[in-house]
Amino acid sequence: MSDAVSIIAAKRDGHELTPMQIDWVIDAFTKGIVADEQMSALAMAILWRGMTRAELARWTAAMIASGNRMDFTSLPRPTVDKHSTGGVGDKITLPLAPLVAACGAAVPQLSGRGLGHTGGTLDKLESIPGWRADLSSEEIHAILADPAVGAVVCAAGADLAPADKRLYALRDVTGTVESIPLIASSIMSKKIAEGTGALVLDVKVGAGAFMKNIDDAQALAEAMVGLGTDAGVRTVAVLTAMDCPLGLTAGNALEVEESLDVLAGGGPADIVELTLTLARTMLAAAGIEGVDPADKLADGTAMDQWRAMIAAQGGDPAAPLPVAKESLLITAESDGVVTALDAMGVGVAAWRLGAGRERQGEAVQAAAGVRLHAKPGDRVTAGAPLATLYTDTPEKFEYAAEAIAGAWTIGDTAVDASPIVLGRIGG
Amino acid sequence: MSDAVSIIAAKRDGHELTPMQIDWVIDAFTKGIVADEQMSALAMAILWRGMTRAELARWTAAMIASGNRMDFTSLPRPTVDKHSTGGVGDKITLPLAPLVAACGAAVPQLSGRGLGHTGGTLDKLESIPGWRADLSSEEIHAILADPAVGAVVCAAGADLAPADKRLYALRDVTGTVESIPLIASSIMSKKIAEGTGALVLDVKVGAGAFMKNIDDAQALAEAMVGLGTDAGVRTVAVLTAMDCPLGLTAGNALEVEESLDVLAGGGPADIVELTLTLARTMLAAAGIEGVDPADKLADGTAMDQWRAMIAAQGGDPAAPLPVAKESLLITAESDGVVTALDAMGVGVAAWRLGAGRERQGEAVQAAAGVRLHAKPGDRVTAGAPLATLYTDTPEKFEYAAEAIAGAWTIGDTAVDASPIVLGRIGG
Repeated sequence: MSDAVSIIAAKRDGHELTPMQIDWVIDAFTKGIVADEQMSALAMAILWRGMTRAELARWTAAMIASGNRMDFTSLPRPTVDKHSTGGVGDKITLPLAPLVAACGAAVPQLSGRGLGHTGGTLDKLESIPGWRADLSSEEIHAILADPAVGAVVCAAGADLAPADKRLYALRDVTGTVESIPLIASSIMSKKIAEGTGALVLDVKVGAGAFMKNIDDAQALAEAMVGLGTDAGVRTVAVLTAMDCPLGLTAGNALEVEESLDVLAGGGPADIVELTLTLARTMLAAAGIEGVDPADKLADGTAMDQWRAMIAAQGGDPAAPLPVAKESLLITAESDGVVTALDAMGVGVAAWRLGAGRERQGEAVQAAAGVRLHAKPGDRVTAGAPLATLYTDTPEKFEYAAEAIAGAWTIGDTAVDASPIVLGRIGG
Repeated sequence: MSDAVSIIAAKRDGHELTPMQIDWVIDAFTKGIVADEQMSALAMAILWRGMTRAELARWTAAMIASGNRMDFTSLPRPTVDKHSTGGVGDKITLPLAPLVAACGAAVPQLSGRGLGHTGGTLDKLESIPGWRADLSSEEIHAILADPAVGAVVCAAGADLAPADKRLYALRDVTGTVESIPLIASSIMSKKIAEGTGALVLDVKVGAGAFMKNIDDAQALAEAMVGLGTDAGVRTVAVLTAMDCPLGLTAGNALEVEESLDVLAGGGPADIVELTLTLARTMLAAAGIEGVDPADKLADGTAMDQWRAMIAAQGGDPAAPLPVAKESLLITAESDGVVTALDAMGVGVAAWRLGAGRERQGEAVQAAAGVRLHAKPGDRVTAGAPLATLYTDTPEKFEYAAEAIAGAWTIGDTAVDASPIVLGRIGG
C-alpha cells in the first residue's frame, strides 16, 4: 500500500516516475495489490501532470508485459492493421480489411465493441447471421495464412494487455478517459501486443470524435506513432475529419449493408475515399507496391475476399441482414441547403435506438440505427426526408428523435465540402 | 454512475461544482452509490483544482449532513474545543481540557487515534488504567453538565460526519491527503457536527507537521476559520511551530506523565507556554473573562479537574502508569550545542518503538516512546545522553534508533530560541 501511495504522490507532485515504479504499479494493479481507488487516483494525477516520452514508453511496455504477445512473423505475407479512435458511422474496417487482404497483406484486426455513441466493429459484424467474434490463436493464424481470406476481425483475447482492460473499465467510470498518454498507451499496448508488423492509425478530429481539435489529435497521433515506431511496428497516423457522420448509415446491420455497397464498387463517396486512402497507407506501411486497391474494388476481388472472411468466422455472407420492426421518418422544417450535420446527434440517436449499449455486456439491436437522407451540401425543402430511424423498440423513438432533431444546420447558401483527410504523422 | 463521472469531469476541467452536485456526490458516496474509485478520482481532481469558498462551505455542510449533529446549547456553561492539526509530542489537550474546564468553560473534545508518526490523544489517555474512550451522547452531556468535571475527551461516534470517515480512509491510501480544502472540510465537518460553540485551532507548521511552510498553514487556517465562522462557531486559529518536538516526551504513558507535571505546576516551558496560550484563546472565544489559567495551574484546581475528568471516564487517576520492559540510551557523538532537533525523526522513532500504529485498528504499546534529554539550546559533550528509547519489544530498538540517529544537529554556537506561536487568524 505504501508503495502505491508514494507513486501516486510522486506523479501528483509532478515528478517523473521511474521505470521500476511503473513496472511495479502496473504489475501490482494486474494482481489486485494496487486497489482500484489507488489506480484511479493515479490516472487522475497522470491526466493532470502528463507523462514524459520515457514514462509513456515504459507504461505501454508494462501494459503489454501484463499479458501475452502474439507473433505473426512466421506468416508468408506482411501483416498490417488499422485502428480508428472512433467516430459515428465509421464502418471503414469492414470494406478495408478484405480490400487490403486482396492486395496481398495479412490483416490481423483485434477489435472492440461499442460503448456510448460510437459503434463497435464487432457489434456490426455480429449482425451477420452465424458470424462469431471469438477465435482461438490457432484459428487466427490459420485464417491469416490462407491467402484467399487473409483478414480476420475478432475480439482481443483476455490475455492481451489485461492491465489495459482493467484500467480502461476504471477510467470509464472515473472521468479519466481524456488523457492523451493514457489513450495512447491503451491503444498502442493492444496493437503492439497483437503482433502486427505495420499499423495505420485513423485519428478522428471534430465534434463527433474524442479529440475535438486538431492540436489534441496531433499530439495523440505523435504519441502513438512514437510508441509504435519504438516498438518496431511501422506506424503511420492519418488525421481525418469527424464533424459529420461517415457515409449515410449509423447502426450495425445498416453499416454492414453500406460496406457491401462499397465492396460492390459503389457506396458513398466519403466512405470510398477514406477506405482507399487508408488502404494505400496500409499497403505502403506493409511494403507492398504496384497494386491499386481501387482496382480490387472494381474487379470484385475485394468482395470475394469479404465473403471468404465472413465465412471463415462462421458467418453466412449470403444470408439476408436483419431488418428493424419499426421506422420513423425525420423531415426538414424549412427549405435551404444543409451546411452542417452534427455527428454526435446522429451517434446518440443510433445509440438510443438500440444500436449501442450503455454498459459493457449489454446486448445491442442488430437492425437499429439511422439512415441519413440529407448531408452537408444537399438542398432540402420543408417536409423533405432528412433521416429514417430504425428500432425494434418503438418506445425509443421519442428519445432518439430528441437527440437527432437539431443535428442538421440548414442555411441559405451552399458551403464548400470540407476535406476528410486533415493531416499525416509518420510513414 | 453517469452523474459521478460528470461531476468528476467538471472538477477535473476546473469548473466550480454546484451545490446540487456536491450534495448529491457526498450523499451517494455515503450510501455506496458513488464507488471508492470514483471518489478517489474526485479527491485527486480537488487536490489539483482546489475549491472556491462556496464549494468548500457546501462540501463541509454535506459532510455534516451525512450524519447527526450534537447540540450542547442546553448546557449552563459555554462550550469551547481545541483541535491540533498534529505534531510530535503534542499532548497539549491533556492539561488543556481540564484547565479550561477549571476556568468555567465546558470542553467537549471528540478526538482521534494516532496514525503514522503523530500520536493520538485517545491512545495517550488509554494508557491510564480503566480509562475508556467510548461514551454515549448521554454520558457526554452528563459529564459536561457537571462543573466539577466539565471536560470530556472521547472518540467521535460513528454517526458524526460518517462521509468524512470514509473519505479520510480513502485519501490515506490514494495520495490525496495533502489538499487544503479536503483537510479543512474534514476537520471542520467533525468539529461543527460536534456542536461546540467556540473552537481554537492549533495549526502546526514545520518539519514535523503536515504543513511544512507558513503560507500553506495560513491558507489552511483561513479556510477553517471561514468555515467555522460561517457555521456560527466562534473560531480562532493559532499557528504554532512544529520543527522540534513539544516537551521532552513522545509516547503514550510518557506524555500523560509529562502532562501531570504541567498540571502540578511544573513541566517543560514550551508545553506550559502553549497550554496557557491556547487556554487564554479558548476562554476569550468562549466569552469567559477575568480568570487567569496560570492561577488554576498554580493553585491545584486544574489537577483536581483532571482527576475528576479521568475518573468520569472510568480511569483511576491514582494508578501507576505502565512502564516499558526495556530501554536504550542514545548518546551524543561529539561536543557542542544542540542547534536543531528534528521532530519527524523523534516521531518516527516513537512510532517504530510501538507507540503508534501502521494501520487503523492496530494496538499500541502504552509504555513505548522516547524521552528527550537534550533539546535545542542545550550544551552536550560526547557520550552525554540525548534520549532514552522505551519499548516492550526490544527487537524494535535498532529500527527506531536508525530513525532518531540524525535528529540532533550539534554545532559550535548557541542559536536563539525560536518562538512557539507564529501567528493568529480570527478572534
